[in-house]
Amino acid sequence: MNTLGNKLKVTIFGQSHAPAIGCVVDGLPAGFAPDMERLTAFMARRAPGRNAWSTPRKESDAPEILSGLVEGRTCGAPVAVVIRNGDQHSRDYDRLRRTPRPSHADYTAFIKYGDDYDIRGGGQFSGRLTAPLCFAGGLALQLLEQRNVRVAAHIDRIGGVSDSAPDFAAVSREELEKLLQKPFPVFDDGAGMRMRQAIEAARMDTDSVGGVIRCFALGVPAGMGEPMFGGVENRLAAALFGIPAVRGVSFGTGFAAASMRGSEHNDPFIMDGDRVSARTNHAGGVLGGITTGMPLVVNIGIKPTASIAKEQDTVDLEKRENARLIIHGRHDPCIVPRAVPVVEAVTALTLLDITFEKNTRKKGKSMVP
Amino acid sequence: MNTLGNKLKVTIFGQSHAPAIGCVVDGLPAGFAPDMERLTAFMARRAPGRNAWSTPRKESDAPEILSGLVEGRTCGAPVAVVIRNGDQHSRDYDRLRRTPRPSHADYTAFIKYGDDYDIRGGGQFSGRLTAPLCFAGGLALQLLEQRNVRVAAHIDRIGGVSDSAPDFAAVSREELEKLLQKPFPVFDDGAGMRMRQAIEAARMDTDSVGGVIRCFALGVPAGMGEPMFGGVENRLAAALFGIPAVRGVSFGTGFAAASMRGSEHNDPFIMDGDRVSARTNHAGGVLGGITTGMPLVVNIGIKPTASIAKEQDTVDLEKRENARLIIHGRHDPCIVPRAVPVVEAVTALTLLDITFEKNTRKKGKSMVP
Amino acid sequence: MNTLGNKLKVTIFGQSHAPAIGCVVDGLPAGFAPDMERLTAFMARRAPGRNAWSTPRKESDAPEILSGLVEGRTCGAPVAVVIRNGDQHSRDYDRLRRTPRPSHADYTAFIKYGDDYDIRGGGQFSGRLTAPLCFAGGLALQLLEQRNVRVAAHIDRIGGVSDSAPDFAAVSREELEKLLQKPFPVFDDGAGMRMRQAIEAARMDTDSVGGVIRCFALGVPAGMGEPMFGGVENRLAAALFGIPAVRGVSFGTGFAAASMRGSEHNDPFIMDGDRVSARTNHAGGVLGGITTGMPLVVNIGIKPTASIAKEQDTVDLEKRENARLIIHGRHDPCIVPRAVPVVEAVTALTLLDITFEKNTRKKGKSMVP
Amino acid sequence: MNTLGNKLKVTIFGQSHAPAIGCVVDGLPAGFAPDMERLTAFMARRAPGRNAWSTPRKESDAPEILSGLVEGRTCGAPVAVVIRNGDQHSRDYDRLRRTPRPSHADYTAFIKYGDDYDIRGGGQFSGRLTAPLCFAGGLALQLLEQRNVRVAAHIDRIGGVSDSAPDFAAVSREELEKLLQKPFPVFDDGAGMRMRQAIEAARMDTDSVGGVIRCFALGVPAGMGEPMFGGVENRLAAALFGIPAVRGVSFGTGFAAASMRGSEHNDPFIMDGDRVSARTNHAGGVLGGITTGMPLVVNIGIKPTASIAKEQDTVDLEKRENARLIIHGRHDPCIVPRAVPVVEAVTALTLLDITFEKNTRKKGKSMVP
Repeated sequence: MNTLGNKLKVTIFGQSHAPAIGCVVDGLPAGFAPDMERLTAFMARRAPGRNAWSTPRKESDAPEILSGLVEGRTCGAPVAVVIRNGDQHSRDYDRLRRTPRPSHADYTAFIKYGDDYDIRGGGQFSGRLTAPLCFAGGLALQLLEQRNVRVAAHIDRIGGVSDSAPDFAAVSREELEKLLQKPFPVFDDGAGMRMRQAIEAARMDTDSVGGVIRCFALGVPAGMGEPMFGGVENRLAAALFGIPAVRGVSFGTGFAAASMRGSEHNDPFIMDGDRVSARTNHAGGVLGGITTGMPLVVNIGIKPTASIAKEQDTVDLEKRENARLIIHGRHDPCIVPRAVPVVEAVTALTLLDITFEKNTRKKGKSMVP
Repeated sequence: MNTLGNKLKVTIFGQSHAPAIGCVVDGLPAGFAPDMERLTAFMARRAPGRNAWSTPRKESDAPEILSGLVEGRTCGAPVAVVIRNGDQHSRDYDRLRRTPRPSHADYTAFIKYGDDYDIRGGGQFSGRLTAPLCFAGGLALQLLEQRNVRVAAHIDRIGGVSDSAPDFAAVSREELEKLLQKPFPVFDDGAGMRMRQAIEAARMDTDSVGGVIRCFALGVPAGMGEPMFGGVENRLAAALFGIPAVRGVSFGTGFAAASMRGSEHNDPFIMDGDRVSARTNHAGGVLGGITTGMPLVVNIGIKPTASIAKEQDTVDLEKRENARLIIHGRHDPCIVPRAVPVVEAVTALTLLDITFEKNTRKKGKSMVP
Repeated sequence: MNTLGNKLKVTIFGQSHAPAIGCVVDGLPAGFAPDMERLTAFMARRAPGRNAWSTPRKESDAPEILSGLVEGRTCGAPVAVVIRNGDQHSRDYDRLRRTPRPSHADYTAFIKYGDDYDIRGGGQFSGRLTAPLCFAGGLALQLLEQRNVRVAAHIDRIGGVSDSAPDFAAVSREELEKLLQKPFPVFDDGAGMRMRQAIEAARMDTDSVGGVIRCFALGVPAGMGEPMFGGVENRLAAALFGIPAVRGVSFGTGFAAASMRGSEHNDPFIMDGDRVSARTNHAGGVLGGITTGMPLVVNIGIKPTASIAKEQDTVDLEKRENARLIIHGRHDPCIVPRAVPVVEAVTALTLLDITFEKNTRKKGKSMVP
Repeated sequence: MNTLGNKLKVTIFGQSHAPAIGCVVDGLPAGFAPDMERLTAFMARRAPGRNAWSTPRKESDAPEILSGLVEGRTCGAPVAVVIRNGDQHSRDYDRLRRTPRPSHADYTAFIKYGDDYDIRGGGQFSGRLTAPLCFAGGLALQLLEQRNVRVAAHIDRIGGVSDSAPDFAAVSREELEKLLQKPFPVFDDGAGMRMRQAIEAARMDTDSVGGVIRCFALGVPAGMGEPMFGGVENRLAAALFGIPAVRGVSFGTGFAAASMRGSEHNDPFIMDGDRVSARTNHAGGVLGGITTGMPLVVNIGIKPTASIAKEQDTVDLEKRENARLIIHGRHDPCIVPRAVPVVEAVTALTLLDITFEKNTRKKGKSMVP
């Protein structure tokens, strides 16, 4: 339900207007001293109100660590963290309860939990729950770096505007580091500018836009993952669909492979010095569910923000009749930029979990570094 | 690894050239009398050699049921089934072992298992392993029908040719029944004809093509699935990526949502008599991981068949040098048509498993039938 | 690791001297309004310092609920609770780290976590971690009562003194209610007095004693549990061994069955009016892993408190030589009385979890109420 | 349900009178060449009809391996094995269905599965299902030996007769090897003789007796297992209760610890040369759920065989009245001797599974070999 992972388990809790949100991270190695400054910086990337394309709401995201760390080092016990929710002004939630917001979880939560679910601010379905996920993911990213794995995502598309994608077989650590420094992470800053214009245009129209995020992981050793239902794709997809607003997950060339010929899509193996490599990487670093050692490439489709200022059609669940709804408050016209670190966090948590599950089978020598 | 599901568990075993393949299905209700004729017909849909667009190989797919059925009815014990592999003529597998086929799992299996993995006919990564999956899925489909849930998939795209998609909010049982009768399941038979021409063209070019399958489930009650990591999307994606050659999974409008405005993508609720419904179904029947009661719509991207008759570049793992490879034997120039029942099988197994997991939370009245 | 359950998941966190301990309870039904007064009273049963046979330490066990409850009712989101640890006076923990206490987890924690584990007050292995477990179990007990299931345990044995056990086939709700009211829960108060004398005698000798707790559950419907590895015994044993100091778990007549003849141990079925019942209940309410509907009876063996005031032999891990150790501080000479509610809590959590997992198989009519 | 393990998964299938029983073992390392002769010898230890104290029934236990082995070596794919059931003569099973046998699973199976469950020969609850479990466990035992871990069990008690237990801190590999050679595995052959007399006396009385098995594992490294619910005790208990007729599981001194003082029960650490050891091993090799490196000691209580030739009381489920029942056929008057290899098998499977789960935490140096 609200727990992710096998050997590295993250349990998320909280609602938007509960006293707090937070998480418990179980399975971290003892003796790990997280760099708290970097963790805070990472979490800030998803926080709202930082710039023009995110909502001006403030979050008081200062996490309090309750357990698992002694003098800044993990001790083997689960790390529990709490982020307090500020005081929230009350709204007419009873009306909201009666008129479910289109494309939100209001209606399905009502079906599942009845009148008892916490509708305030989206309750447990609020995007705010991605803050503790970024806390946990931020720890995972640091542990992956110790293992020489680097994870970074770019905005591949917003509205109709596409970033220029790098060669999946040749994307470099330098490119990823540059990406991670950018407030709006795209390879082509011109495209980034046009994306922001598309966001701004949507806001002007009291509307919203969706997009696609592409996440890379470099340094993932070959041979990770299990066949069939235990593959890296299965695991990553299962985790990434836990991020609100995700509508699709694909690997490498993804759905575009559907329009390709085999001779074009197959990645020819080549020797790179004495190492096995591949000329192209349409596979996105996974064959048969198992990593090849080439860059891992995963694409995540994000729907447009469901909360828009336009008046919308809905139903009145009590009166059993059609109704009109206006959603008040400020909302991101596009959540894609703030979802980038969340995608990185979830990807990192899943890769680290797979790393922690021992590969018990006899291994050949990994030839791709 | 090779086990799918929580309360309904399917464990797949076998390799292409082992004495047998098969599966164990645990968690079926006692007293279920499967219609074996329909099960055989369902399994025949994925069998090779039935028509022009599939390989002329023969499979002796007669399954022998070893346990779990007494006089044709389930008794509560796991149902185990075995499908014998026919005698296979030997090939020069040692050479194949040295020169991994591009886009196959040969190389990753070598990394994971070393020289001990069973490379004959693709070993445990062979598409043949989807036969027992279809056996299990065929049982699940019948049990879902008893619960009034109908699952059917169409070929949405092959090469550059697209089928005409139905309205996701209005797709009817009649349309699905018609689809299930077709040897080449498309809504638009003209498009189907052009798809087959695209397959034939690829074959003529000693090449292959990929495609997209879209699967519908009607009658899924609202309120199924758990929040965050326990959602219907997470569960379906984790299962569907277990099918060989799947490269992407999306729901409803999927990746196309990335290019839409919120005002366009949001599905307005409307009253349909005294029932809650929605005017559109871009969500594909899931909001917040929980089913809405609208048709469930999932899209699966399939890569072009990796085995092509063209000579390809690869490496010689022993000599550590570049090499050329010709793959012999007959292979489907497009596996998409044969993958359609496999997609239905896996979707059915996952939906039935979710059904079997008790919803322990207090439920509102489901208003969407 | 620190998570218990499938559909009802409890994740425990904290160390004895961390800022806090607590838990996350996921899977509670929405709309449940826990009786907080009863929950507090239940938690008080395990708190230290209440009477002569427990340590005079004080715990500030006031739990703060961070999420999952809205106006006193569950909303479907996980319930997270935090119990702050008071300020702890520092000790010479470095010396303790070098000289592991016999029968404690100091040495195994050192092997597992190295010098980074939190040795202060027993760290994550401290009995204090049973406080959040009792919080979660207290919720489960209330939900079981709503389902007419009553769980209560008695002290069957301490030192050499045994309580008089009731007839396992006839133990009544009235007997259990009386037990639950007693500060020292035994059926025979004379035996209880002698047990307390045995505890007092151990304390006078700067020593400790162990004991056996027997837990009953009445009203558990017949047919719960799965065959083989999914049985009620498997599930309860796996959970109960999570309580510190538990050394054995048995059901019904337990190990004594080893000395019985079949004609004596078999429980003859008899009609009780129109209901099926059994004359005896050596089985303890479980046959083939599945509940019979008779009272569930589980026995838990508890070792003597490891912390004793006597000087003990140990080793100095740094100097690599034999050493002597004196453990300071106040410790329960017998933890059995305080472990009684913990056993009830864990039994309740497990039974409720099994209840929440849907029994998907066709059921005969349960004849035992 | 019928699946055991996390990284090493064993799925058992079959019923006593189904066409076959068998299992699927997933997670074995590639390149393992099982010694089939030893495996056969191990399985023969649980087979019936070998000697005076087991039933004269014959089993045709020749296992056919369907997958996972290529030229005698594991290839990474699951190993599936099938054991055919011989032709069974029909019995009056309808009468048996109406009059459940005391202490068998007939009644609980009826509650769970209704009239559809397979009552023939005990169906899926038959002790025969332990044959595939021994196949899987026999593989695990060989793999553990490669890791220098040796598992062997003795009969600690039958009826009122006890074997002489070795010193838990000093039990040697030589003693275990000797034990494994004995057809009736006890340390004290005089006690063994008296146990066999007790079995014979029970048979003469058309009755049965129970007993206790104690299993040792030497060479288990210190630091295995996880805290709280992931401990070695939790895992072993959960698995061992899957063996039919097991009524209790305890570790080391077990329930006897309840009558001991702490000063007597605590195991003092001592230096043994430069290695840390312990003077006694009441803990049975586990502290805080984590192995100490001392011999692992687990005790398993087994009830007397439920099938006895004496006429017994039961009920007629159809007529709803009391009835009398005579069980025909030959049954072991004591299953304890044949359960010994089953206990070893399950212990080995669980220990190997724990070994396969990577210990991700930073480790201190294990000082106990």
